[in-house]
Amino acid sequence: MSKVKVAAFSVSLDGFGAGADQSLEHPLGIRGGELHEWFYPTQRFQAMIGKTGGSSGIDNEFAERSFDNIGAWILGRNMFGPIRGPWLNDEWKGWWGDTPPYQVPVFVLTNHPREPIVMKGGTVFYFITDGIEAALEQARKAANGKDIRIGGGVSTIRQFLEKDLIDELHLAYSPVFLGTGENLLAGIDLPKMGFTTSKTVFGNGAVHVLLTKK
Amino acid sequence: MSKVKVAAFSVSLDGFGAGADQSLEHPLGIRGGELHEWFYPTQRFQAMIGKTGGSSGIDNEFAERSFDNIGAWILGRNMFGPIRGPWLNDEWKGWWGDTPPYQVPVFVLTNHPREPIVMKGGTVFYFITDGIEAALEQARKAANGKDIRIGGGVSTIRQFLEKDLIDELHLAYSPVFLGTGENLLAGIDLPKMGFTTSKTVFGNGAVHVLLTKK
Repeated sequence: MSKVKVAAFSVSLDGFGAGADQSLEHPLGIRGGELHEWFYPTQRFQAMIGKTGGSSGIDNEFAERSFDNIGAWILGRNMFGPIRGPWLNDEWKGWWGDTPPYQVPVFVLTNHPREPIVMKGGTVFYFITDGIEAALEQARKAANGKDIRIGGGVSTIRQFLEKDLIDELHLAYSPVFLGTGENLLAGIDLPKMGFTTSKTVFGNGAVHVLLTKK
Repeated sequence: MSKVKVAAFSVSLDGFGAGADQSLEHPLGIRGGELHEWFYPTQRFQAMIGKTGGSSGIDNEFAERSFDNIGAWILGRNMFGPIRGPWLNDEWKGWWGDTPPYQVPVFVLTNHPREPIVMKGGTVFYFITDGIEAALEQARKAANGKDIRIGGGVSTIRQFLEKDLIDELHLAYSPVFLGTGENLLAGIDLPKMGFTTSKTVFGNGAVHVLLTKK
């Protein structure tokens, strides 16, 4: 059965999944990059940026696992790029260059229609203007029985949680305090929604928790 | 120089320092006990309940450290006992029996005056009815150059943080999600207040973070 998953999503100990004031210079918000310091040294991330080497421990295992059996992604528009408002032209094709790491269809939530973009390596960006449930329906078809990964950002994940559309969350708590930014779980009661912690592993740079529905 | 400290204070990954619905049966609130599962197995806690043995690793080191150089404690009334409103009699003398683990003066914040209680082993409970700053002044005198530990609960720590009266926080993040309860840091921006993470250690049962002022 196809699952809807959040995976390898980094959160600060004070609950923020992104810093404040996102911009082209700070795509993850101010200090948002610190959330991912567990991820950057991993073999998986090093391979994503075309390098060899990297760590092979627990953090890497969770990084690898986050890509397993994924048939489609759903991203908020800010995860696709820094541009706000209507698309001015077709130049921006995501943060990753010609060959993004998704390698499957990616459904980008936006208010502004745009033609699909076929990238190298299997990634196709589709732009969905009629909401998260429409995006999920299309992602399910595209995933063809595999899982659907809700990539983020915080606002997108919160929308899916608020409609109870998520089956599994792997959150990576990084030992940093941002003080301000986008709070992932404020007002969201995961136990009440039926989530229990089915796995907890302390890595080198983060505490990995896997939350699944009872 | 005498410091005002929070130490070995347990927090869930979703930010709660106590569960909901505190009562005599649930002094830490519903599921609040799960926050302290890193602490119970330690040598230090085992000694506090009159037992020998217990773990001696990182979690125990942080438990031990939380009692070092403490000259006085300040507690919210709920940390002293489950009774609300005026003291009906002098029977309740805290959760710990005749010989509490504090072994120094303890200043209990309350709206209801009560005579001091001298316990065995050095603990004296004083009841302070004129607010946190008065309590801190008395605790400083009593501590005689040693540190003052703000024991909790959440509401008491928040009051001290909101008046910027805390120098150091050791928080122990437990890998549990309570979903509801008393949120420790909601609306409190530790980095903006000048706190930085000066130490992070992953124990067996918690992530220990030491936050100090720049």
